[in-house]
Amino acid sequence: MSILIKNGYCLKEKDEICDIFIENGKIKKIEKDINKQADEIIDASNCIVLPSFCNAHTHLAMSLFRGMADDLALMDWLNNHIFPNEAKYVNKEMVYICSKLSMLEMIRGGVGCFMDMYFFEEEVAKAALEIGIKGIIGEGIVDFETPSCKSVDDALSKTESLKREFESEKIKVSFAPHSTYTLSKDSLKKISDKAQGSIIQIHANETTGEVDMALKDKGKRPIALLDELGLLTDKTYLAHCVAHNDNDIELTKKRNAKVINVPQSNLKLASGIAPIYKILKNDIEVLIGTDGSASNNNLDIIEELRTMSLIQKIISMDETALNAKDTFNMGTKSLFEDSGKLKEGFSADITIIKLDSFEATPMYDPYSYLAYAANSRDVSTVIVDGKIILKDRKFVNIDEEEIKFKVKDMAKKLGAWH
Amino acid sequence: MSILIKNGYCLKEKDEICDIFIENGKIKKIEKDINKQADEIIDASNCIVLPSFCNAHTHLAMSLFRGMADDLALMDWLNNHIFPNEAKYVNKEMVYICSKLSMLEMIRGGVGCFMDMYFFEEEVAKAALEIGIKGIIGEGIVDFETPSCKSVDDALSKTESLKREFESEKIKVSFAPHSTYTLSKDSLKKISDKAQGSIIQIHANETTGEVDMALKDKGKRPIALLDELGLLTDKTYLAHCVAHNDNDIELTKKRNAKVINVPQSNLKLASGIAPIYKILKNDIEVLIGTDGSASNNNLDIIEELRTMSLIQKIISMDETALNAKDTFNMGTKSLFEDSGKLKEGFSADITIIKLDSFEATPMYDPYSYLAYAANSRDVSTVIVDGKIILKDRKFVNIDEEEIKFKVKDMAKKLGAWH
Repeated sequence: MSILIKNGYCLKEKDEICDIFIENGKIKKIEKDINKQADEIIDASNCIVLPSFCNAHTHLAMSLFRGMADDLALMDWLNNHIFPNEAKYVNKEMVYICSKLSMLEMIRGGVGCFMDMYFFEEEVAKAALEIGIKGIIGEGIVDFETPSCKSVDDALSKTESLKREFESEKIKVSFAPHSTYTLSKDSLKKISDKAQGSIIQIHANETTGEVDMALKDKGKRPIALLDELGLLTDKTYLAHCVAHNDNDIELTKKRNAKVINVPQSNLKLASGIAPIYKILKNDIEVLIGTDGSASNNNLDIIEELRTMSLIQKIISMDETALNAKDTFNMGTKSLFEDSGKLKEGFSADITIIKLDSFEATPMYDPYSYLAYAANSRDVSTVIVDGKIILKDRKFVNIDEEEIKFKVKDMAKKLGAWH
Repeated sequence: MSILIKNGYCLKEKDEICDIFIENGKIKKIEKDINKQADEIIDASNCIVLPSFCNAHTHLAMSLFRGMADDLALMDWLNNHIFPNEAKYVNKEMVYICSKLSMLEMIRGGVGCFMDMYFFEEEVAKAALEIGIKGIIGEGIVDFETPSCKSVDDALSKTESLKREFESEKIKVSFAPHSTYTLSKDSLKKISDKAQGSIIQIHANETTGEVDMALKDKGKRPIALLDELGLLTDKTYLAHCVAHNDNDIELTKKRNAKVINVPQSNLKLASGIAPIYKILKNDIEVLIGTDGSASNNNLDIIEELRTMSLIQKIISMDETALNAKDTFNMGTKSLFEDSGKLKEGFSADITIIKLDSFEATPMYDPYSYLAYAANSRDVSTVIVDGKIILKDRKFVNIDEEEIKFKVKDMAKKLGAWH
């Protein structure tokens, strides 16, 4: 299978109009006027072409709970709404269908890879493979019984079996301890022992309340605790980091752990604003995530990036902070090594945005357009690993209405009216 | 001309599925199963029907400068980029065409009325009347020469002639002193003398720098100064109010002046966050605006409302602040007296949003959907004064491509590449 993308303005590496030739899932050539036969030719004139976006922190199946409980604080929201409903309604089928809905929503917005933490993660992997999106999955580990696992040991052996079954070029499997407040020190240590050398994702420093709990119950701030237990490594992704103080930043940097900024969810739950401008100054890698659509309430990365850029300018009191290009770079950083750039030899994970909207009129700078004006609906085409998933704003060989119908049908039991 | 909207879920007043019968520009009846003949029947099943949004602070013609100069502080942006380019490129034709582009962008996002402050406002009025959107116009008044007026006196007589020519059910004419930092005390007094009994719009308390300047040069904070000079009335709209302290709030309340929140522009220019949650607690009327698309960089009210709600939760440290319904109410408050509600006798200013997107799946609560999930592109139909301007996501009898083409053509001279 080969694809030739003609005459698009290619961002991130080239920054000029050129053609891209794709073969066997890889970018083989990027230059002006490529003269080659291809199975599929995409006319990208009047378009920008970019590495597809990455949604680095989400709980895909939670689309079932989108808009069910809003305007609540994190702990009230979790303990009185989300956890009880999860106990009741989360099962294999729900995770499969609702994750698929979320994957389509992400692709519609130009996303080509994700990192997910939830239950029944084998269903997330299956859905991703069927749809063609790439991702890191992680079976959530907590000290209490979940819809899919009875215990920490159970979740750990589940993680091992997910690795055996799904680890591939398209799916990576992480260890996913939920947080320091839902796991004892012993459990965290047990997870750490198994997770050495593996990808680890965890909610960390989401609120100051979480920090207080860790100090009270475990004698250390969450980041120091993770470090003590061997869970802060160069393969660790720390989601949220709202309460990151200078010591936390130093430790994160020292261990070369990654930070995932989740701005809209943090605002919506009044958790706070992560000091991303400071974290970036310390050369820590930062990616962006939407969180699940129960706390966001959509999976729109362009919207998320805009919110991030705008609020970082305010908390830093510096209007040049997180400028348009920084913002773009954060959104297109990939979780996969050979992805995230339009570069020969890299995986063909590509998003094409058509510049036919009011928001793109006029156009002085495509980075400024993406950061401050673009609407995610202007994404026209998404290619992952050289496979076209969305073309001219329509899914290729995917029946989106069927998936929407199934989710709506499930949601009726929870009181949805539509 | 009569319109019958069938089976939409009607927000703000009814909150249930019903029909709306429109005749001669007015809402004549809202109830279930209206059995009447109409010139046009709109099927709104699977849709929400709401009063159209209002963009209460903007500079429509500035779409020409969208994305031309970003990541800059307010004064640098104004003095070194916007003012020099305005002197060079703003003329009657530019204001007419670029305002039209902005009006279409707003209508595409469900907006039915606006308040504009710029130059050559007769062109804004003409464009609005041609397109069918309603608005308050205001010829910007400053102490220096503008593209359209030589002096304050000139701008004042221009305002009087705009009133004579355009004041009507669709267009209202305001006095528009730019700010306390671009006008001397004498000029402000002169404007006040003419403006008694009229609508007044002014940038006020946009930055702490502005407050410092007013204190240094004029001995008072901007709001107190406006009050002293008779410019703080129940017909005064104060745009921004970022630096509103408790005294400013008290004075605003006392004079029953209105506040216009402009969140994204204030964040982007690192001006700050207006204490809207406090201002609302004092029962002051608050509307929302996007500012011009040179500092935003779009005119998307749904995006603006979301940003407002999310950041107010943070600065108040209260996740219930500006909840979904409050947010919706702020966005649908109208500048026209008989508008802003779906109510019999009210003007038929109506926006219909189709619930066929991922973001609307599932749907537990339409207010939550609008505040936290909706994308402005899901607006399908916009009716202003009983006239259908947008139908099924297409403009009725308006050639949007022609207007885009003309703006692009103008922007080429300024260095736009598209």
